[in-house]
Amino acid sequence: MFRSTFLMSLILLPLSTMAENKRPSPSNGVSYPQGWQNWAVISVSHRTDNNTLRLIIGNDTAVTAARTGNTKPWPDNSIIGKVVWKDKQLSSWPAATTPGKLMHAEFMVKNSTAFSNTYNWGWARWMGTEQKPFNKGMQSCISCHQPVQKQDWVFTEPASLP
Amino acid sequence: MFRSTFLMSLILLPLSTMAENKRPSPSNGVSYPQGWQNWAVISVSHRTDNNTLRLIIGNDTAVTAARTGNTKPWPDNSIIGKVVWKDKQLSSWPAATTPGKLMHAEFMVKNSTAFSNTYNWGWARWMGTEQKPFNKGMQSCISCHQPVQKQDWVFTEPASLP
Repeated sequence: MFRSTFLMSLILLPLSTMAENKRPSPSNGVSYPQGWQNWAVISVSHRTDNNTLRLIIGNDTAVTAARTGNTKPWPDNSIIGKVVWKDKQLSSWPAATTPGKLMHAEFMVKNSTAFSNTYNWGWARWMGTEQKPFNKGMQSCISCHQPVQKQDWVFTEPASLP
Repeated sequence: MFRSTFLMSLILLPLSTMAENKRPSPSNGVSYPQGWQNWAVISVSHRTDNNTLRLIIGNDTAVTAARTGNTKPWPDNSIIGKVVWKDKQLSSWPAATTPGKLMHAEFMVKNSTAFSNTYNWGWARWMGTEQKPFNKGMQSCISCHQPVQKQDWVFTEPASLP
């Protein structure tokens, strides 16, 4: 029994250490939302002022809120993610713009207790494929979101889905 | 025992009938892929020739293939979905284009046995929020995909993700 437990530790330890190493450090004190690459979609967008394509995804709480119109305000524990790529022309269909270089993934984490000083949202961003955390504070995020303070600080309007 | 089973049937029957009624009819003989609204993302795109935004998603087989570079060819049982919306300007950020009216959701279903006559793919489309099946045959889909016959008939190049 002791022996098999010991052997199990030897097998499991390297795996868990690897997983731990892979998780990026917090951004602005907000933990990295793991598994977002498989979250369901809330919307997409294309910005012509900085030539970027955007994917807007959410955790289960946020996606349920988006699809039931329960976003004024978004419920506690919602996490909304926005993935941003530079524009790239598709060679097989030149009138199509597709994702080029990954710029960053940014997240709004709703928690009216933990983030009561920042309009009930935690604001975070991780840059590039290496997901380097942004740590210059939440104020720069909040400044840009001023135009939508009356819609719970969220630009995204959920896309129509059947 | 009999009584409780009977009562269970009364409760469960309306639910299953409702679910059955909600599933759209096949398109070009291809069954409607249920649950695609929660599938993970492969890419996004914006077409300036017809002013539409597109979300490209996949079932587990397709997403795994996309993220491991196993797309030449895509493996059997891959389903790739493309959701298409008309452009809409975002009022809170005018330089952003976002999803307006839902046009259609279209799918390529890889099955080298069932679809050996159509390049190993089943080609299907359901239109509008009511998801009305397209039933004019697969040839019109295939014609448009001619430019990418050498990349297993798929336009989408998977987006870079961390």
